[in-house]
Amino acid sequence: MKITFIGLGIMGSRMAKNLVKEKLDVTVYNRTQSAAAELVKLGATVAKSTADAVKDADVVISMLSTPGVVNDIAFGDSGFVKHMKQNALWVDCTTVDPGFSRDAAAKARSYNVRFMDAPVAGSKIPAEKGELVFLVGGAAHDMQEVQSLFDIMGKKTVHAGDTGMGTSLKMLVNSQLAQAMVVFAESVVLGEKMGFSRDFLLEFLSALPVTAPFIKLKTDKIKSNDYSVEFPLEWMQKDLHLLGLTAYDNGVPQFMASVASEIYASAKADGFARDDFSAIIKSLEKRAK
Amino acid sequence: MKITFIGLGIMGSRMAKNLVKEKLDVTVYNRTQSAAAELVKLGATVAKSTADAVKDADVVISMLSTPGVVNDIAFGDSGFVKHMKQNALWVDCTTVDPGFSRDAAAKARSYNVRFMDAPVAGSKIPAEKGELVFLVGGAAHDMQEVQSLFDIMGKKTVHAGDTGMGTSLKMLVNSQLAQAMVVFAESVVLGEKMGFSRDFLLEFLSALPVTAPFIKLKTDKIKSNDYSVEFPLEWMQKDLHLLGLTAYDNGVPQFMASVASEIYASAKADGFARDDFSAIIKSLEKRAK
Amino acid sequence: MKITFIGLGIMGSRMAKNLVKEKLDVTVYNRTQSAAAELVKLGATVAKSTADAVKDADVVISMLSTPGVVNDIAFGDSGFVKHMKQNALWVDCTTVDPGFSRDAAAKARSYNVRFMDAPVAGSKIPAEKGELVFLVGGAAHDMQEVQSLFDIMGKKTVHAGDTGMGTSLKMLVNSQLAQAMVVFAESVVLGEKMGFSRDFLLEFLSALPVTAPFIKLKTDKIKSNDYSVEFPLEWMQKDLHLLGLTAYDNGVPQFMASVASEIYASAKADGFARDDFSAIIKSLEKRAK
Amino acid sequence: MKITFIGLGIMGSRMAKNLVKEKLDVTVYNRTQSAAAELVKLGATVAKSTADAVKDADVVISMLSTPGVVNDIAFGDSGFVKHMKQNALWVDCTTVDPGFSRDAAAKARSYNVRFMDAPVAGSKIPAEKGELVFLVGGAAHDMQEVQSLFDIMGKKTVHAGDTGMGTSLKMLVNSQLAQAMVVFAESVVLGEKMGFSRDFLLEFLSALPVTAPFIKLKTDKIKSNDYSVEFPLEWMQKDLHLLGLTAYDNGVPQFMASVASEIYASAKADGFARDDFSAIIKSLEKRAK
Repeated sequence: MKITFIGLGIMGSRMAKNLVKEKLDVTVYNRTQSAAAELVKLGATVAKSTADAVKDADVVISMLSTPGVVNDIAFGDSGFVKHMKQNALWVDCTTVDPGFSRDAAAKARSYNVRFMDAPVAGSKIPAEKGELVFLVGGAAHDMQEVQSLFDIMGKKTVHAGDTGMGTSLKMLVNSQLAQAMVVFAESVVLGEKMGFSRDFLLEFLSALPVTAPFIKLKTDKIKSNDYSVEFPLEWMQKDLHLLGLTAYDNGVPQFMASVASEIYASAKADGFARDDFSAIIKSLEKRAK
Repeated sequence: MKITFIGLGIMGSRMAKNLVKEKLDVTVYNRTQSAAAELVKLGATVAKSTADAVKDADVVISMLSTPGVVNDIAFGDSGFVKHMKQNALWVDCTTVDPGFSRDAAAKARSYNVRFMDAPVAGSKIPAEKGELVFLVGGAAHDMQEVQSLFDIMGKKTVHAGDTGMGTSLKMLVNSQLAQAMVVFAESVVLGEKMGFSRDFLLEFLSALPVTAPFIKLKTDKIKSNDYSVEFPLEWMQKDLHLLGLTAYDNGVPQFMASVASEIYASAKADGFARDDFSAIIKSLEKRAK
Repeated sequence: MKITFIGLGIMGSRMAKNLVKEKLDVTVYNRTQSAAAELVKLGATVAKSTADAVKDADVVISMLSTPGVVNDIAFGDSGFVKHMKQNALWVDCTTVDPGFSRDAAAKARSYNVRFMDAPVAGSKIPAEKGELVFLVGGAAHDMQEVQSLFDIMGKKTVHAGDTGMGTSLKMLVNSQLAQAMVVFAESVVLGEKMGFSRDFLLEFLSALPVTAPFIKLKTDKIKSNDYSVEFPLEWMQKDLHLLGLTAYDNGVPQFMASVASEIYASAKADGFARDDFSAIIKSLEKRAK
Repeated sequence: MKITFIGLGIMGSRMAKNLVKEKLDVTVYNRTQSAAAELVKLGATVAKSTADAVKDADVVISMLSTPGVVNDIAFGDSGFVKHMKQNALWVDCTTVDPGFSRDAAAKARSYNVRFMDAPVAGSKIPAEKGELVFLVGGAAHDMQEVQSLFDIMGKKTVHAGDTGMGTSLKMLVNSQLAQAMVVFAESVVLGEKMGFSRDFLLEFLSALPVTAPFIKLKTDKIKSNDYSVEFPLEWMQKDLHLLGLTAYDNGVPQFMASVASEIYASAKADGFARDDFSAIIKSLEKRAK
């Protein structure tokens, strides 16, 4: 099976590496070519254009940043979809909104390309360790076709349903993630003003059953004032924004998620866009003098 | 040591029972006398008035519903504090706000009564099993004096600091609890409109590291549409309201907690005040047709 | 000048009627044909398809409900833009978001059609009386070309700037409108629970300089429980949603507008989508028992 | 009639001055004595303590900052109420919450002192010009007794109802005021990012019927970056906080007001507490880079 991987950012580079290390036939493409160097050393082929990258591929995996970027790269003037082989499979791992996935599937179909939305739960470290969870929307037999790839890059695959349902599920997961972080951070900031030490709060609150377990992974870093990026704050806000789009489409109020989205927007304006999303605490503490 | 326990609601009755079962010398008082019957069978003494209840006590433990109720029962015209022995210790386990605890301590001092705020983390089941966590504000030597009682009723005692700090910590814990529940419920309600089954969502989302572990205890009940009370929704809203008071006093914005408070207020208006706070999902689903 | 008017809803039918009454050469199109009957009696020509409607027009004015509908009717398989005369002018009065207007302008340009965004401030009655305010984005000379039409349908024209700026300004106007209504309604509902009569509150609060003057136009109707539509609640929520899109694009938090959007979403779910947006008070009072 | 005026801040000094200028018998008291100097020149008597100030008064008018301050000055160890003449009338013009007014009335009654809540609508300039609106809660005959004083200090008196209803109405008025300002400011900040000039936005939006008329009084100052205090931002947040208390007591959600309260809290933390509340725009623009 000839595989093409498009998008070698924090996530994509680690996912592709796991495929390459298994000696699979992998062609990679990234807008910034330098990102591909390490993968080439490990055996990947690098393509100069997306057209070149996809023309012989049986499976094209994309892991990009936003719906807008997927749209440009897949369907823009030099978009790759029109260069794919007939009946090839495009697996989009980007976090987008369900409406976007469904549109992308329809457009791909018009080029006789199969589409699958397969966003992942898990960030930098699980991507590195091959421990992602794939949330798949699309036909079951298409999923079987690439199950072995998901098994290399991840530890679990959930078939969420038809096209768009993988993306739908991802919306919910990241909404929980984003909100748990900001709820925790608001409490820590208040707690400090109440007179507790930050270290005490980080340890005490993160150990409680009222706190999402992933927080524990953030508290050590927060203690040492380390906000190096695992999941960029700006993508977290994007994900809440996409959730807002789909909540609107579904006619379901999401008060908490909406307010969380505005809090992340404030943090972006505060200059934390490219930090880890746990930097939300730095933005909040600015408003608690 | 003569112990008096005031307030035999969902929590207090179970906490007192654990003390009584240890054959300690316990006098109980509740506004509704019937609540004491079982405890009397087990060996407790019941008092007809709070004055009677506390007059010989070395330690008075109160577990009531709101700051207003504590104020009435402790400091009203027939308030118990003025009837306490000199230098006796009053341990208030009610969830109140830190300002209230500090005021209560000051007033108690004027009657030569020692005060300790000792709210608990944990609801009905941990109360029953003696697995509460006590969050204590007050003097360390006062805490040692009643440590053996905390050990009977709970599995852990945290000395949070001076008077009011136990209450402060409790504010933060319940804020996490209240918000985690509503964040989860908003996602489930949206997820259903997206096309997922409720059972799938309850299982899938509650198993993720982005979800607070206590949610798992709620999902089985939600599946069977069981909202029988463990922690009444109206007290959850009260706790968020108290958090709002203390956040105001500390000059710290709490956007998420404020909005959560309004969502619980809406649920109260929807008629779910006396249900378990997990009934927030029933209120939210009314707004997602 | 041959004019075509597409979209004969609450607003469009009244705007077109004012043009027709001036004996201008007007062709109209609406998906539901019956809407055109009265205009035909007054002298308008009715077209059976949008292609027919626009093929000879010098100016095409569209007044539709949502960006999605504009997209279908303008650019769908039987979209009208490709049937317009070379260099003809399309004036879109629909409330959309600025990004949409800019995209529409770019697509129109590819068909050699000029584009102008010209949403209006004012609802049913101003539309009827020819007292709308046009908020125009586009080239100044294009605006001059249709100024006489704006003067018939409106009382004022504001040249907001380049393409998209008319729409941008409309976003802000409707955001104020939507929020002023919900802020007022929340206070009335609270005031009633405080013990004031609704009539007193409606009169007293609406007369104050702290209240937007348009509220006065709503209070008489609210008094008589009349929520017949002047501006449908569902479009108000749509407009707040579009504001959210553009706020996201601009990186500006809009906490109040976001929460207002969720409140309107709740009201839609409560069944008030097709009532006047002042029915927000009916939704709020359901949550204030 | 012997009148005592307690509290000579921005509002109180101007209100008292209008009484003094009418050659009424006025004794004044302020914690900072210097504030009384000008009034003494005009004929007022200054008292060194509140006890001295009130002992002969028929009417005591208080205009203070917060419920806490009223509580200290009226009921603290050297509180003035116990020094008032039997059956004298205390008129509290401070903005407090209705529960506080009702408590104050009950406590005053225990000293045989009559109480009236009479907060005002209007800030610095109307106070100076004697154009305030008094919102009165209490007995009608008590109100008649001091109507002549209200007529000097104000242009209108509204008898809102029994004790606490003046305060209740004030809550609603200030809630509208606070929210209208922040809604407007959010739109201006977004509008600037959209590409409009601030001057254009201030003029255009403030002239629309969707905008509260008082905004017009703020826009000139905002244009010249003048945030000198007419109504301090920190008291605006206090008022929203008090509204929150009474909304909780009444079981009525106030989503918009709650979020506005958090926005003002953020602005306080940003250092704008002692500026005019229109400085909310400066806080918001910090989060819109």
